Amino acid sequence: MSIESAIDALKPHFGDRISTGQSVRDQYGRNEAWYPPTPPDAVVWPETTEEVSLVARTCNEHGCPIIAWGAGTSLEGHIVAVQGGITLSFDRMNKVLEVHHEDMDAVVQPGVTRKQLNDDLRATGLFFPIDPGADASIGGMAATRASGTCAVRYGTMRESVMALEVVMADGKIIRTGSRARKAANGYDLTKLFVGSEGTLGIITEITVRLHAQPEAISAAICAFEDIEGAVQAVQQTIQMSIPVARIELVDDVCIRAINAYSDMTMPEAPHLFIEFHGTEAGVAEQAEIVGDLCSEFGGSGFEWASRTEDRTRLWAARHNFYYAIKAMCPGRTGYNTDACVPISRLAECLLESRKDVPEGTLMATTIGHAGDGNFHLSYMIDPNDATEVALAKQLADRISERTISMGGTVSGEHGIGIGKRKFMAEEHGDAAWQLMGQIKRTFDPAGILNPGKLVPGN
Amino acid sequence: MSIESAIDALKPHFGDRISTGQSVRDQYGRNEAWYPPTPPDAVVWPETTEEVSLVARTCNEHGCPIIAWGAGTSLEGHIVAVQGGITLSFDRMNKVLEVHHEDMDAVVQPGVTRKQLNDDLRATGLFFPIDPGADASIGGMAATRASGTCAVRYGTMRESVMALEVVMADGKIIRTGSRARKAANGYDLTKLFVGSEGTLGIITEITVRLHAQPEAISAAICAFEDIEGAVQAVQQTIQMSIPVARIELVDDVCIRAINAYSDMTMPEAPHLFIEFHGTEAGVAEQAEIVGDLCSEFGGSGFEWASRTEDRTRLWAARHNFYYAIKAMCPGRTGYNTDACVPISRLAECLLESRKDVPEGTLMATTIGHAGDGNFHLSYMIDPNDATEVALAKQLADRISERTISMGGTVSGEHGIGIGKRKFMAEEHGDAAWQLMGQIKRTFDPAGILNPGKLVPGN
Repeated sequence: MSIESAIDALKPHFGDRISTGQSVRDQYGRNEAWYPPTPPDAVVWPETTEEVSLVARTCNEHGCPIIAWGAGTSLEGHIVAVQGGITLSFDRMNKVLEVHHEDMDAVVQPGVTRKQLNDDLRATGLFFPIDPGADASIGGMAATRASGTCAVRYGTMRESVMALEVVMADGKIIRTGSRARKAANGYDLTKLFVGSEGTLGIITEITVRLHAQPEAISAAICAFEDIEGAVQAVQQTIQMSIPVARIELVDDVCIRAINAYSDMTMPEAPHLFIEFHGTEAGVAEQAEIVGDLCSEFGGSGFEWASRTEDRTRLWAARHNFYYAIKAMCPGRTGYNTDACVPISRLAECLLESRKDVPEGTLMATTIGHAGDGNFHLSYMIDPNDATEVALAKQLADRISERTISMGGTVSGEHGIGIGKRKFMAEEHGDAAWQLMGQIKRTFDPAGILNPGKLVPGN
Repeated sequence: MSIESAIDALKPHFGDRISTGQSVRDQYGRNEAWYPPTPPDAVVWPETTEEVSLVARTCNEHGCPIIAWGAGTSLEGHIVAVQGGITLSFDRMNKVLEVHHEDMDAVVQPGVTRKQLNDDLRATGLFFPIDPGADASIGGMAATRASGTCAVRYGTMRESVMALEVVMADGKIIRTGSRARKAANGYDLTKLFVGSEGTLGIITEITVRLHAQPEAISAAICAFEDIEGAVQAVQQTIQMSIPVARIELVDDVCIRAINAYSDMTMPEAPHLFIEFHGTEAGVAEQAEIVGDLCSEFGGSGFEWASRTEDRTRLWAARHNFYYAIKAMCPGRTGYNTDACVPISRLAECLLESRKDVPEGTLMATTIGHAGDGNFHLSYMIDPNDATEVALAKQLADRISERTISMGGTVSGEHGIGIGKRKFMAEEHGDAAWQLMGQIKRTFDPAGILNPGKLVPGN
């Protein structure tokens, strides 16, 4: 009854699809954030739901932790094997199973990445709009309730996941939800698994809602005198129900870096990067209204681009901001935060958080999914400098506390994992937080599913 | 340790706000569907969350059922006291507590009705779009995951409820969610309570998302040769991402009744009733595109009305369809169904279900929230004719089974209550259905919250 005995029990079935080799374990012990590498004891590559069920049943009997792994792009240590055990890699469960054109949905395996799905959909006139930046797996995105730049228009994984197949801790296979667009049919198990970060069950199939590729797309950029003005323009846009597809705040430091990296000449000021989806006439009308709003709040040089190559260049520059920043600060890397507040508090939360940074210490940059009240303040640190790392941690904690005090959440989209767990009781209140722990124990009495993450007593 | 002892324990605190009088009990024993009147043993009118907590704590100790009651408009027997106990009336918890104009949300007590909230919002430029027809309470709408005609554009209560205050079975008060637009912060307790039909906790405060009142609204009607054509036009509209605010299917029988009742002269054929929200230009463009689509699929006489009085008349006619039908069949009343299927199966499901009705027996009418794949086939029965009631039940059950076989749900929006419970295992699979029961027991070990409804072993 141990991790070792679980691995031994699985070896005959999985053969060369189970590995305890050091290099493989190391590869699955890494993470994209600040958590020390913590390799699992073994990695398994299942090919079917039944094989996932076999792993769960076996691990449940032997008391062996299971960590589900999609693309490994998580930022809050969801995938590190803090208590050892077996990492389930979904590399081989990466098929788009069904695309229902008329119903505008698709059924995929957890290892399918969002870009892969969109490549598959290209000819259909449909697309999957959730875009967290990284080419994350749909399974991982469902498990962490991911979102990104298009959430302001198309929602997050919370709104996108219609149905799931899930392997429970004891190996039972259940289905939740359906392909019907709405339902008043009992507890919303789908939404309970979405965002449960691998602690309640292992997602083996996901039905996602798709959207029509818009007839016309245009993008716009606009410089602002200050961040308040940019945020006010966003607020007003949302209040007027202009259905912007993206509306991103990019601060002056990022603009400087982007100019240098992508050979652009934007004024070094806070900017909004905006995208409009709709009919030709609709997109033009949206751009006109938003252009007027931007001027009203101190925006200048509002420019819009409907040519694909101009748009692509603009968003490539935005998406590459992190590389741009890194190029500007060689040897340094970003320590990310993820506050999300009611939009009326966005400017205040962001500006106070920037003021926290002691002058002459860390460079801070801000990218914000402003339409959702979500922003990422990142500190550029030298990872080998313990003082800088400690300062970044301390500043990030202050942001989390400020966010909670403003009625927001410590995680808009990155999740809790091991990084934000210490704020859960404060954010939710102890009773709600303990209730999450009770749900966890009901679903996974032996505590084998992603232990050490998200919930109390895990 | 009984219902009586719980009532006795509460009397000193509640005084004349607790009643065991027969007429009051009868009033709270009724329901708007086909379930026999089943009065509670007492009715309590709390005024604060703390009083709800006191009731819960007391009932939990004494093993006394609690049934939460908003406006009493439920259609699946959610509010009948099948095991006796205490009905909690939210008549006195009916305040709009906060309206956050900039953040476009409002915090309300559970007894606030949707019309009351919209009246309150009139001057703000905002509105609450969820419209199930009846003037339901927001608490009840959250508890049953209500939706209605505007869901195709604005979502259902699933998308509208941002945060809750909930009294648990043992009297603990918890808060779930926040006013942040998105979150990746642990289990989605909010979504778990939404649609839990009073079986997991008692909702005492609801934060709902609001929307901007559109600059322009126009409505349109169009007659079709057949239901398939109308459904195809809807499908195409959705696939082209035309953001229709409502798109309702009304069958020929309903049209005949509406013509007679509302003094209108629509051709006696299936119709779509459509509403567009947007800018002046946007609404005109939407109407033009949808008009073309309708023609393509056999629609004729597409007319659109942007004058408020014409629109109001149209929707009043649609909303009064039930009275119109009743006027056409004196002494009869509707037995409602609530199937929701993937839209590709909508026409087939609807037409097969209509064919089920033996000729010369019940008159069947159809109203459909076609954009969501949801329709209500209603049988006009004489409630005192046991044969007709039995036939209606049998036909409704066939619809539920057909819906499940087509990958849909037995309830698009009315909920499960006691009426649809027998289909839960079939729709969700036994394992998922049992999991709902486990959640119920975790939240409410003594089984006092709305017993006899929704989940197994309740």
